[in-house]
Amino acid sequence: MVPSPELRAAIARLPRGLAEHIEGVVAEARRLALLHGVDEERAALAAWGHDVARAFSPSELQAEARRLDLAVDPVEEEAPILLHGPVGAAILSRDYTIDDAEALAVARYHTTGRAGMSTLEKVVFVADKIEAGKVRAEPALTKVRQLADRDLDAAVLECLNQHLLEASRKGWPLHPQTVAARNHLLLARRTRG
Amino acid sequence: MVPSPELRAAIARLPRGLAEHIEGVVAEARRLALLHGVDEERAALAAWGHDVARAFSPSELQAEARRLDLAVDPVEEEAPILLHGPVGAAILSRDYTIDDAEALAVARYHTTGRAGMSTLEKVVFVADKIEAGKVRAEPALTKVRQLADRDLDAAVLECLNQHLLEASRKGWPLHPQTVAARNHLLLARRTRG
Repeated sequence: MVPSPELRAAIARLPRGLAEHIEGVVAEARRLALLHGVDEERAALAAWGHDVARAFSPSELQAEARRLDLAVDPVEEEAPILLHGPVGAAILSRDYTIDDAEALAVARYHTTGRAGMSTLEKVVFVADKIEAGKVRAEPALTKVRQLADRDLDAAVLECLNQHLLEASRKGWPLHPQTVAARNHLLLARRTRG
Repeated sequence: MVPSPELRAAIARLPRGLAEHIEGVVAEARRLALLHGVDEERAALAAWGHDVARAFSPSELQAEARRLDLAVDPVEEEAPILLHGPVGAAILSRDYTIDDAEALAVARYHTTGRAGMSTLEKVVFVADKIEAGKVRAEPALTKVRQLADRDLDAAVLECLNQHLLEASRKGWPLHPQTVAARNHLLLARRTRG
């Protein structure tokens, strides 16, 4: 379960900052996978692939989503950048022969989260936020990094809460799956006590 | 379209603070109805009725929701107080012979909002937040009051944004209808320019 030469070559062709981000996410995903009992190589593969469509323009993402016949939420119509998750997952399956459903779900849902994320999804979702370049750009993510090693759910929740705050301040719509992800974690944690 | 003597009597039996709140909401709803082109008497009726189930305990609301066979969202299971909207609407229809669908929708959705609220729903939703007692308890609502006279949608959005901030800070789940209400308003305003 290693990225194919074709996928590695595709990532090497991405803008330099994005390729460096992906390398950072792979490293964090490996580290978190070991801490949280997830297969390290599967986490690395999912991390390599998660941003394969991140450099697409908004109109390319919309066109690709139409071509792939993806269901597009009104919030994604407004913010096509969110489509790089589902479009990327479809590309990983179609062009890079990744058939691991869990790894594809990582790419599919890393832009929004979803209710009932697997541990693998949480590992890469959080790794995506705490790699060094991202934390430099958004210092509030330091708190996510501090939580990630000992409580993965708390780290995901902190990401989602920071997103809520930013959405509230900036007047962004909220993706229904992001809200469902947060509700699910909050309610599960209360049930567990 | 006036509240029946039975409904007025039921409101008079509510705890004093709640009855005063309802009277304040009726006054604000009349004022906003005139400003925003909604039938004043219909707004007053909806305001009289909106909190008819507000004094129910959480377990009473849950029991009544089961009896009425209402669909209960997991967020409402966690925060049964939210059920006083839908339970209240059912009671207004069953016990107080209110058959005006728009007035019932006001009660039904005033706890959460919803995508595509009518102007009547917005009038009472906002009146509920800007009556004097509520603003005294939550000074941030002053901003909603300032917006309400000239831009009802902006006032609803400000309520919803304040709710998002509070939910983020306090770790509350967010009701899907609240998020849908906010997304709908945000996207509609962008489409309008």
